[in-house]
Amino acid sequence: MSADLFSPSLQHWLDLAGIFVFAISGALLGVRKNFDVFGMAVLALVTGLGGGLFRDLVIGSVPPAAFADLGYFLTPLVATLLVFFLHPEVERINTAVGVFDAAGLGLFCVAGTVKAYEHGLGMTASTALGVATAAGGGVLRDMLAGEVPALLRWDREIYAVPALLGATLTALLLKADQLSPAAGAAAAALAFTVRLLAMRYGWRAPRAWQRRSGRAGEA
Amino acid sequence: MSADLFSPSLQHWLDLAGIFVFAISGALLGVRKNFDVFGMAVLALVTGLGGGLFRDLVIGSVPPAAFADLGYFLTPLVATLLVFFLHPEVERINTAVGVFDAAGLGLFCVAGTVKAYEHGLGMTASTALGVATAAGGGVLRDMLAGEVPALLRWDREIYAVPALLGATLTALLLKADQLSPAAGAAAAALAFTVRLLAMRYGWRAPRAWQRRSGRAGEA
Amino acid sequence: MSADLFSPSLQHWLDLAGIFVFAISGALLGVRKNFDVFGMAVLALVTGLGGGLFRDLVIGSVPPAAFADLGYFLTPLVATLLVFFLHPEVERINTAVGVFDAAGLGLFCVAGTVKAYEHGLGMTASTALGVATAAGGGVLRDMLAGEVPALLRWDREIYAVPALLGATLTALLLKADQLSPAAGAAAAALAFTVRLLAMRYGWRAPRAWQRRSGRAGEA
Repeated sequence: MSADLFSPSLQHWLDLAGIFVFAISGALLGVRKNFDVFGMAVLALVTGLGGGLFRDLVIGSVPPAAFADLGYFLTPLVATLLVFFLHPEVERINTAVGVFDAAGLGLFCVAGTVKAYEHGLGMTASTALGVATAAGGGVLRDMLAGEVPALLRWDREIYAVPALLGATLTALLLKADQLSPAAGAAAAALAFTVRLLAMRYGWRAPRAWQRRSGRAGEA
Repeated sequence: MSADLFSPSLQHWLDLAGIFVFAISGALLGVRKNFDVFGMAVLALVTGLGGGLFRDLVIGSVPPAAFADLGYFLTPLVATLLVFFLHPEVERINTAVGVFDAAGLGLFCVAGTVKAYEHGLGMTASTALGVATAAGGGVLRDMLAGEVPALLRWDREIYAVPALLGATLTALLLKADQLSPAAGAAAAALAFTVRLLAMRYGWRAPRAWQRRSGRAGEA
Repeated sequence: MSADLFSPSLQHWLDLAGIFVFAISGALLGVRKNFDVFGMAVLALVTGLGGGLFRDLVIGSVPPAAFADLGYFLTPLVATLLVFFLHPEVERINTAVGVFDAAGLGLFCVAGTVKAYEHGLGMTASTALGVATAAGGGVLRDMLAGEVPALLRWDREIYAVPALLGATLTALLLKADQLSPAAGAAAAALAFTVRLLAMRYGWRAPRAWQRRSGRAGEA
């Protein structure tokens, strides 16, 4: 998930931080679903690396960063061990996990958009891949665990919207050739802040108009 | 999903039409599952573009058409908006949607087979990718929504068979170097017609022989 | 799934054998889920070829072996026909199927690691792709059928561990430039034996520490 937006070293550490917090959420879901430690590790790997893997396959960057950089691969395993030994403590700081997950969302929607754009994709496609980088791992996590992805559900706070805002702003800045590190950080902060506000105030996206209320509870 | 079978412009419009009708079915499932508008959009994108995306990744055509052509990407979003504002009306013409979906099936099984063949794959592999192009989006749609894919289920009318017939005929015509636009249209019409007849007369494929009836209801 | 570890011809036959036994397990799940014959075929194809397809997409080997070698593609269809006509007999030898599946696991974790390593991936990434080659098809099979993948579940015997042992040994041998056919066969035999012992003695992997027993039954 590297991109030369920030200095390579800083970008790499930001990537690892994003992978780590996503992986924590995957390993925690593994605990809640009563999976064993290998099930936890698979969910952690998929959540942390799945979005970037999808993006890299689409833009033809093989082998994907997830398999080319050892740190990327080992980070979810560290997260798994942490949750394995300390999960009651990790659960207790669930709000903190939500905040870190929002930070990962912000970082990845920017980094994913930049990498896709640098590989020659158009603005719209780059924005879409930025959102997919940020949200794709969580969707795969939920599918593997046999749950309907939270991203799709009406009864969850908005998740795609913050990523879409951050990715769109990034694409506009790239188009205008104005994506400085500070501007990239601002785009990530935008996604991060909107996601935090959505969690705090329970923001949801609308369902289809004129949906009969009698069917609202069926899903 | 392009292929120079018809004139580029006509082929492009046919592709968009196929993507559109598949996307409608995805967005409608989103309404039925009580998803929000972004969940509807994700299902519409996946249903309309997923089959072609899988084919393009397999044949190494990156970035896939879904991300290289803006019209391909925007069409499912238009379908989402339409269903969002008008879904009772769209539901009412559900039979029409089924007919359009059958048309998309016919178009995509031919276009997918042609594109795979042009990328150097063999007849059998091209046929398989034609079927995957036509049916893959619907399978991904059902998996994301937490449903067992209709394609696999015994209690649904056959869907793979019409696509298989159209794709096989296309591959045979390609092998014989006889795939004129008219012949391609005939292959698409074959798949379309068989699917319509299957829906009209409730054609199903057989289950395993000697399956004990006592276990029939468990799935 | 070819690799020049053994003579090409022997390797090819071992690959086909592995695909065949995996495909049998896919087709049998299709019977249990009450799918029709096309649903059985899709599950057989996905189980037999899915792991190798994922590996080939990741290492950029397109078209993947599954679509480049006709024998690879036809083998799952033969397995489907066999189960379709003879499934009570196949069910009766379910233990034998388990043994063959363990053999496929052993063969594929070695062959997958070798192929990834030959494409220039590092030791850890090659090991991971070896495990993914061996276990990926079964995960996709379970996801398609609407089941939580057996690989993740605590109440199933370990499956990832034998593959991990075989793949790790293979990667170490490759690193030391000592992977003779005999050494490769030993790595496959290691995975095979550990999996058989796990099935025989009900070996399971641990869940997260301090997991409260009151929540154990919820998943």
